Amino acid sequence: MSDRLRELSRDECLARLRTARVGRVAVTHHALPAIVPVNFVVDRGILFRTSSDGMLDHACRGQVVAFEVDDLADDGCSGWSVLVVGVADSVDGSDELRAIRSGLVSARGDLTDRFVRVSMTEVTGREIVAPRVSMTSRSA
Amino acid sequence: MSDRLRELSRDECLARLRTARVGRVAVTHHALPAIVPVNFVVDRGILFRTSSDGMLDHACRGQVVAFEVDDLADDGCSGWSVLVVGVADSVDGSDELRAIRSGLVSARGDLTDRFVRVSMTEVTGREIVAPRVSMTSRSA
Repeated sequence: MSDRLRELSRDECLARLRTARVGRVAVTHHALPAIVPVNFVVDRGILFRTSSDGMLDHACRGQVVAFEVDDLADDGCSGWSVLVVGVADSVDGSDELRAIRSGLVSARGDLTDRFVRVSMTEVTGREIVAPRVSMTSRSA
Repeated sequence: MSDRLRELSRDECLARLRTARVGRVAVTHHALPAIVPVNFVVDRGILFRTSSDGMLDHACRGQVVAFEVDDLADDGCSGWSVLVVGVADSVDGSDELRAIRSGLVSARGDLTDRFVRVSMTEVTGREIVAPRVSMTSRSA
């Protein structure tokens, strides 16, 4: 890893996942890659809501997907990202569904919605470290 | 498409791509999906900079990748996203490299950097449309 990139520990990754509300899911749809932004929470995995007739629900059934959150400055010089890789699947238990229904929004706004959970099998992250300021430039 | 989602035209997608500076690339690395945030510009495709010994450079050589930009509210109730699917490849011509070198930053900050261009073979986008406000709630 370059000296400008610092690897985040799993605990640091989890802390950043817990403060974020929007992430992106990468799936394969009709043999092509796709990325979909979602509103999510951390609840024994990455939990988000989608429509039962949507691409995301179909692409997530038992598949290995990537989920990512980040905060990268526009100039690319500072920021961080956390990547989760795991198996995505629908949440089926009705008790559990009732418990998690609040606070998650499906972009499609349908009543026929689904909750998808991505297991946190692999959690990695990195942070861009600002270059050290030299004494010369400090005194300038 | 749900009545809360509006499909963006290709021109609308391109306009939003041109105003964004940070996007995410979805690739396959060691047979697993990954998402990497990058600082980018639109220049006959999606153009970003990475390290020659990095995962992104390896995963982008002649591969079909997804590239996405979005602006989704934390509550998931408003926002938009644009998805580009195309073939990623290194930019090799030295004249072209000199011309595009400015303004793009590699997270790894290495001198041994690469420029990658993703062709804009498929460009799609969608916007979450706010629900109509009824007369009743307006007068409340």
